[in-house]
Amino acid sequence: MHIAILTFEGYNELDSIIALGVLNRIKGDDWQVTIATPTPKVTSMNGVVIEQMTTLEEACDADAVIVGSGIATREVVEDPAIMGVLRRLDPSRQLVAVQCSGALVLARLGLLADVPACTDLTTKPWVVAAGVDVLDQPFFARDNVATAGGCLASPYLAAWMITRLVGAEAAEDALQYVAPVGEKREYIDRAWRNVSPYLPAPAPALI
Amino acid sequence: MHIAILTFEGYNELDSIIALGVLNRIKGDDWQVTIATPTPKVTSMNGVVIEQMTTLEEACDADAVIVGSGIATREVVEDPAIMGVLRRLDPSRQLVAVQCSGALVLARLGLLADVPACTDLTTKPWVVAAGVDVLDQPFFARDNVATAGGCLASPYLAAWMITRLVGAEAAEDALQYVAPVGEKREYIDRAWRNVSPYLPAPAPALI
Repeated sequence: MHIAILTFEGYNELDSIIALGVLNRIKGDDWQVTIATPTPKVTSMNGVVIEQMTTLEEACDADAVIVGSGIATREVVEDPAIMGVLRRLDPSRQLVAVQCSGALVLARLGLLADVPACTDLTTKPWVVAAGVDVLDQPFFARDNVATAGGCLASPYLAAWMITRLVGAEAAEDALQYVAPVGEKREYIDRAWRNVSPYLPAPAPALI
Repeated sequence: MHIAILTFEGYNELDSIIALGVLNRIKGDDWQVTIATPTPKVTSMNGVVIEQMTTLEEACDADAVIVGSGIATREVVEDPAIMGVLRRLDPSRQLVAVQCSGALVLARLGLLADVPACTDLTTKPWVVAAGVDVLDQPFFARDNVATAGGCLASPYLAAWMITRLVGAEAAEDALQYVAPVGEKREYIDRAWRNVSPYLPAPAPALI
């Protein structure tokens, strides 16, 4: 199971790294979470240089993909080399989730055509201009496409992804670990309030 | 104003990067937030390689220091080269804050002698064994020393630091930016509930 977090030059650290931290609470040889970049290194909007763990090409083959956010997403969606690769993203065979301005990438790929989306308040006008209905809430998902708005909505997105790939109990354990001491139940309950409405209904019991 | 986030081999990404992201909401030439490492690069507990922005020596001269967390903090406190440098940390002239297992570093430096502390549940037995009273809450500060427990308590620690260095309004703006869309007021109120009791009392008005 490979989850790739697409991370571009000028990336927002919170929008790539929080999901990575929560997703890595799942342990096992068959669980790999990577930072996927277009170049061997990328520098964040605040000067944090991180090294590539996977290429964008490899990321397109992942079981799940998160498109991170940053100050240069509007340049990313105009970059034919990057967008040419990302055209291989396909929610019919993988989970595709985006954080904040990552919604612009999905909009440009035509993957938000009939799906409302969450994004951050700075990106909102650009996503609206791309013809997408933007919601005033932290998380939304339909089928295999999820969007989150506001950096600290990342744990919701990670919880949705773990639930879809492993199960609700594993997601709850991951949230339990990262939540503040003394506030763990409150954090988990709030995450479920945001995520549960967008999970597939359990299969009905056979009578 | 320089804030250095001490980040060691095996670091927990959330415990260094969330504070960095929130602190960087303050803009200006006189505001610098750096990742301080003992080596030119460090690799996280989940394989994320980041580059040094400052040395530990330079970090000791910072206006404020955050000691990050990780899977190797027990090795860090046994490393004479690292601890020899960190002995220069001095809460009488700088803010010193720690996240999760960073509390072990402060305990070893003798900076938690009469101060209770917050830490994560995994590290708790080690901090207790170091003779420190560990609290079941996400954040505690006394004078210039602050501790936080649970990765997602990082925004509380960052809000405390911004309030001390810049002011409460700047801290609230930073939290406003990073909080989930649709939950911003709730996040900010909870942060203040955790942080306010540990801020210095405002100077009484002169009659």
